[in-house]
Amino acid sequence: TGVALMKFKSPPVNSLSLEFLTEFCISLEKLENDRACRGVILTSAVPRIFSSGLDITEMCGKSTEHYAEFWRAVQEMWLRLYGSNMVTVAAVNGSSPAGGCLMALSCDYRIMGENPKFSIGLNEAQLGIVAPFWFKDTFVNVVGHRIAESSLQLGSLYPAPEALRLGLVDELVPEEKLQEKAAAVMAQWLALPDHARQLTKSMMRKAVLDRLAAHREEDVQNFISFISKESIQKSLRMYMEMLKKKK
Amino acid sequence: TGVALMKFKSPPVNSLSLEFLTEFCISLEKLENDRACRGVILTSAVPRIFSSGLDITEMCGKSTEHYAEFWRAVQEMWLRLYGSNMVTVAAVNGSSPAGGCLMALSCDYRIMGENPKFSIGLNEAQLGIVAPFWFKDTFVNVVGHRIAESSLQLGSLYPAPEALRLGLVDELVPEEKLQEKAAAVMAQWLALPDHARQLTKSMMRKAVLDRLAAHREEDVQNFISFISKESIQKSLRMYMEMLKKKK
Amino acid sequence: TGVALMKFKSPPVNSLSLEFLTEFCISLEKLENDRACRGVILTSAVPRIFSSGLDITEMCGKSTEHYAEFWRAVQEMWLRLYGSNMVTVAAVNGSSPAGGCLMALSCDYRIMGENPKFSIGLNEAQLGIVAPFWFKDTFVNVVGHRIAESSLQLGSLYPAPEALRLGLVDELVPEEKLQEKAAAVMAQWLALPDHARQLTKSMMRKAVLDRLAAHREEDVQNFISFISKESIQKSLRMYMEMLKKKK
Repeated sequence: TGVALMKFKSPPVNSLSLEFLTEFCISLEKLENDRACRGVILTSAVPRIFSSGLDITEMCGKSTEHYAEFWRAVQEMWLRLYGSNMVTVAAVNGSSPAGGCLMALSCDYRIMGENPKFSIGLNEAQLGIVAPFWFKDTFVNVVGHRIAESSLQLGSLYPAPEALRLGLVDELVPEEKLQEKAAAVMAQWLALPDHARQLTKSMMRKAVLDRLAAHREEDVQNFISFISKESIQKSLRMYMEMLKKKK
Repeated sequence: TGVALMKFKSPPVNSLSLEFLTEFCISLEKLENDRACRGVILTSAVPRIFSSGLDITEMCGKSTEHYAEFWRAVQEMWLRLYGSNMVTVAAVNGSSPAGGCLMALSCDYRIMGENPKFSIGLNEAQLGIVAPFWFKDTFVNVVGHRIAESSLQLGSLYPAPEALRLGLVDELVPEEKLQEKAAAVMAQWLALPDHARQLTKSMMRKAVLDRLAAHREEDVQNFISFISKESIQKSLRMYMEMLKKKK
Repeated sequence: TGVALMKFKSPPVNSLSLEFLTEFCISLEKLENDRACRGVILTSAVPRIFSSGLDITEMCGKSTEHYAEFWRAVQEMWLRLYGSNMVTVAAVNGSSPAGGCLMALSCDYRIMGENPKFSIGLNEAQLGIVAPFWFKDTFVNVVGHRIAESSLQLGSLYPAPEALRLGLVDELVPEEKLQEKAAAVMAQWLALPDHARQLTKSMMRKAVLDRLAAHREEDVQNFISFISKESIQKSLRMYMEMLKKKK
């Protein structure tokens, strides 16, 4: 059918580790170069979680070199996904905070399971972290400036119905219909001629993609100097402790 | 009353041919230079159609010189209408795809007949064509980035009620009340002092107008090279065949 | 609690006179430099009016030097408030036209009294005046381009319920609950770590703040030449006469 299904399977919560991101980029590149493949559906094989976002262990107590390598992988994931020539549909079958939300925002269309316990949002601020400008640009393109401004400052996570209301996701469907619906939406998008659709997508997203491409190394340095601060490291350690206790 | 009514009357579907566009620009310029004229209402004399958009026969099997002349006329129409000092109200009394939608989007206010059979949208992608960046800029200014992005990729045409919900039109009224309502809206806008209103309008639209003005010849060349592609010519010919069969 | 309350008390209508603006900037700067202060709530001590906006007497029949001094004070107010590192909440307990609306728009969050007689908007056009580009930028960031474009051209004032619908205010509460609600919202925002929140706020607002900073003197000259026009002076005098008669 020309449609690939990428199912995230990195239990317990599909954290975006360096390994996860590297594999994701390789898989996406393969599909991108496969002329038989015209669209990809992103979803999760882990119950109740789409992706928990960037893996905090990659940002805590590691070397400067590691931070740089990790951040380049995060950039690479976004540059490839947001700039993909394929039709990209996120079948968000669980919660999707921070980097997980970014992955969904970078697709062409977002369908979420109709479960009020599923939440989505760029909640970096809650961890004392700042979402970088390209997370912000992607977010503004989807929900507009006002919602992005308060959401990013408050690190808001929205339950599925609220996410729909804000346009953060395009549609809610009962969980058991999610994959079927994603396939139907994909078929609708693939009914259009690829060439015009790809040029149009590029026209819409180019300014924001170019901005990171032009400031990529600066953005890496910025991340390193921010994440290396003792205050930030401390707050990440506390957050990890809290997560462990939760279990 | 200082208000002109421009009624499109180019049966069967008010296609934007080179002749139509040239006459439109001349008429608009006359009104613009007439100090007694402060506002113009655009509507159609053809039942159930506002304008079907760019005339495909102008883009099919013609010379490079013809494509260039035609595209400059399309640009000219938009530069004059979007940049008009007059109050411009679109009384959309029928369907309004592609270039017809652009004309409506370029006015200050859009009122549409409350008829679910009337649809409006930038559906270029359905013909394998890419809406140029200034169509896109105008669209984003009206409906925001997210709706513009998916609409342009899918070539979506929206029935009147959906167009209202998305802000693509500002108001729906029963068809028989459309002209009356357009006149009332015009009166409301003309109650404001011209000078401040014109400066404000220019402030809001200048960035987008300047962008085409600065890249006008490049945009012409871009159109020519795109439309001259054999694949595009073929898809336009097929579309015209389909239209003929429909009749 | 780290929260300051600034109550505008300049009867009869909290006009933004040169004196008011100067005092406002001094107070805000003091709070900004006070490390114990993390947030400020703006509200009015005058019944039924938040602020009536720029004091017209400062713009009428005065010297060029006075106009320049006044306009720099208006710019200064906005640069400090829109760029504040503190959490800023507007408790809009009355009508808030023009410059009063700008002050509310420059806060992080707007709560308005649930009174249909309270209205808010940038109604400069009704006086024959043009809102400057940075009023416009601030407005677009809150309500988007389409609403800003028509509102600014029409000088629209919106009753509280309509203002909520457009996103011009974030929430309506019964008047007697307004201060309580503002304090609760402030507490919610202050629950986030300051550092990440401040960097995020700056990232969201920097482009618009920088634009005035880069064109500040040009904007002053622009104001002076506009306001010095005899036609504008006449229209302001007429407006003031009308206000006097209303009393």
